[in-house]
Amino acid sequence: MEFKKGGHLYGLHRVIEPQGVLPQSSLKLDNSAPAYDNEIVVEVETLNIDSASFHQIMGEVGRDEAKVAARIEEIVAQRGKMQNPVTGSGGMFIGTVRGLGPNYKGPEGLKVGDRIASLVSLTLTPLLLESVDKVYLDADQADVTATAFLWPSSPIVRMPDDMSARLALSVLDVCGAPAQTVRLAEGASRMLVLGMGKSGMICAAAARDAMGPDGVICGYDLRDGNLSVMKEEGIINDFRTGNAKNPAQVLEQVSEMIDGGLFDVVINTCNVADTEMSAILACKDRGRVYFFNMATDFSKAALGCEGVGKDVDLLIGNGYAHGHAQMALELIRDYPAVRAQIEKLFC
Amino acid sequence: MEFKKGGHLYGLHRVIEPQGVLPQSSLKLDNSAPAYDNEIVVEVETLNIDSASFHQIMGEVGRDEAKVAARIEEIVAQRGKMQNPVTGSGGMFIGTVRGLGPNYKGPEGLKVGDRIASLVSLTLTPLLLESVDKVYLDADQADVTATAFLWPSSPIVRMPDDMSARLALSVLDVCGAPAQTVRLAEGASRMLVLGMGKSGMICAAAARDAMGPDGVICGYDLRDGNLSVMKEEGIINDFRTGNAKNPAQVLEQVSEMIDGGLFDVVINTCNVADTEMSAILACKDRGRVYFFNMATDFSKAALGCEGVGKDVDLLIGNGYAHGHAQMALELIRDYPAVRAQIEKLFC
Ligand SMILES: NC(=O)c1ccc[n+]([C@@H]2O[C@H](COP(=O)([O-])OP(=O)(O)OC[C@H]3O[C@@H](n4cnc5c(N)ncnc54)[C@H](OP(=O)(O)O)[C@@H]3O)[C@@H](O)[C@H]2O)c1
Ligand SMILES: NC(=O)c1ccc[n+]([C@@H]2O[C@H](COP(=O)([O-])OP(=O)(O)OC[C@H]3O[C@@H](n4cnc5c(N)ncnc54)[C@H](OP(=O)(O)O)[C@@H]3O)[C@@H](O)[C@H]2O)c1
Repeated sequence: MEFKKGGHLYGLHRVIEPQGVLPQSSLKLDNSAPAYDNEIVVEVETLNIDSASFHQIMGEVGRDEAKVAARIEEIVAQRGKMQNPVTGSGGMFIGTVRGLGPNYKGPEGLKVGDRIASLVSLTLTPLLLESVDKVYLDADQADVTATAFLWPSSPIVRMPDDMSARLALSVLDVCGAPAQTVRLAEGASRMLVLGMGKSGMICAAAARDAMGPDGVICGYDLRDGNLSVMKEEGIINDFRTGNAKNPAQVLEQVSEMIDGGLFDVVINTCNVADTEMSAILACKDRGRVYFFNMATDFSKAALGCEGVGKDVDLLIGNGYAHGHAQMALELIRDYPAVRAQIEKLFC
Repeated sequence: MEFKKGGHLYGLHRVIEPQGVLPQSSLKLDNSAPAYDNEIVVEVETLNIDSASFHQIMGEVGRDEAKVAARIEEIVAQRGKMQNPVTGSGGMFIGTVRGLGPNYKGPEGLKVGDRIASLVSLTLTPLLLESVDKVYLDADQADVTATAFLWPSSPIVRMPDDMSARLALSVLDVCGAPAQTVRLAEGASRMLVLGMGKSGMICAAAARDAMGPDGVICGYDLRDGNLSVMKEEGIINDFRTGNAKNPAQVLEQVSEMIDGGLFDVVINTCNVADTEMSAILACKDRGRVYFFNMATDFSKAALGCEGVGKDVDLLIGNGYAHGHAQMALELIRDYPAVRAQIEKLFC
């Protein structure tokens, strides 16, 4: 396979406009072959389009496979990547490695023929799209004939062979959170997981793994379905249900679980806005709040925390951490109840 | 002085609507006397209205002292607090303590007669406003006849007597940043301050204080005015100028200063949007980026960091930290060059 010289670590060589920005913020990427010397060439089989993006497209063109396919082709033709111009979001893809540039530095032992998933890189991945072959309206997915090019700073992971692609993608989508949870668990003895959905359950399992049987892990969610399962399994010690948008009420409810005290660490994995203050109030002085919830508002967190005079560290949920994908997949294997619950609800 | 019973730690007793939210997010506060048992009563002399709020009001009613005064009175009459309904922002105030509730727990030794400043609490402070007596159009200030009530979770500070109120307020406005900088300096040997304005200079001084003469502290800003002064004074080791909105260029420029390496800690004190990626790229693997810049976008930071596969901790600039106000004032005393520069530019 032939490769062009001069690939940049962060993919600047693919940015057409505006010049000088990173691929993710670009309006248009160069999606042409051949690959650069620091890239891999991936034959893409399926695009997993971000839910917000997919629903925006259906809202625009209707629930019609052919029309959604045409809109995807149009976006990629315009932008060189599948980044929805309205929502700004992308998604992930699955494919097979067909070539490795001589200067590519990625996961150890990666080789031609490996089946991989990209981790949220559709917003920054040059995609040479021949055709959209089939659209799955209920799964936010599309099978395609296409080639993608990835440089070293774009996180990828080998697809596991002991679970369905759907389960793996579902877990990989949120794999940044459990990796951070494990780090935050160090030295902590009481942790609260606010929002016990997909990422909340995996974070609770990560916390149990890291904190051991003596760690006190509590949960909070609108409804008790996942919470009950997690408690039965001994993954969490206790839980309450209610609305995370009501900080004063949440504070009263959750501190009951630990005799009126507060938590060393609070992990916010809700999927709605206005949950900053519940997480902050539940956290003890000099504790840490981790916001994985993408509906978090920077100023609400910063000014709200100052307004109640709380000295806690507020962390933005970076989706990347070393080894995050492997760790999340491992947790799913080690905690069959979490796996079963995710399969039941999301697969 | 008479006090009502039943004050809540976070001031919920003052929220009229919507019920159950914290005072900061309320539409209307009860600003009536007498005070509750956990409050202090402050005779307010001057309101320092947040710049965004003040300019919105002038845009609405014109550059007219009487009209601005009337608009302030109207807002407080509607909301029970001076929180601009359009910008959502408040400001600070200066006043004198006139009464201390028996259950108030605030700064040690606070007593009736002390002159204090509230730290950003106009958005959550019940203000019983009799009249706006004088408006200073160029200073975003208003002298008033008014009473404010503060509960223990609202940070306040005694006004220092060795500097002008204007300088003190200017420094107190950003006092969260240097306190966090000192914490982040622990174990760090190379720090970058991105944006060398008021808070940037105080952060650089805080870093020098904490890291000692061997610490490598670098600066970056659009223009070299403050940077040159900081370098001459030995507070920073080196600097570059340019636009923090161009991450690839910033990365190249700043890593030059440390032989192509990256920084352990990056403090973002710019005052414009789209500077997330410059801060992130300049930070080394497992380093920490502190976003004091209120124009920071949560998702741009979270997704951008993931998109470039960087494993760094991203911190939201909580404006409160224990002892932050005293520390910032102390830094100004210890670094006369920083004080002089702030007086020249902001006072
Ligand atoms: N930072 C990153 O890189 C990254 C990557 C992926 C995802 N995320 C974010 O992570 C968040 C969680 O994702 P997920 O896949 O775990 O979502 P999820 O499975 O839908 O879980 C969210 C949970 O929060 C609960 N919830 C919703 N509103 C609530 C409220 N008012 N009070 C209490 N609980 C409430 C939901 O309950 P119901 O199901 O009953 O509504 C659900 O159990 C999302 O915001 C997503 O954007 C971040
Ligand atoms: N989290 C909190 O609690 C809190 C509290 C107070 C303030 N803040 C925030 O802290 C930030 C800084 O406040 P401040 O008082 O220090 O502001 P400042 O004195 O105006 O400093 C900002 C500096 O950034 C520079 N700058 C602007 N655009 C730039 C660019 N594109 N590239 C490089 N440098 C650039 C400015 O240069 P020029 O002067 O040449 O434009 C200025 O030197 C603000 O965003 C403010 O909202 C946060």
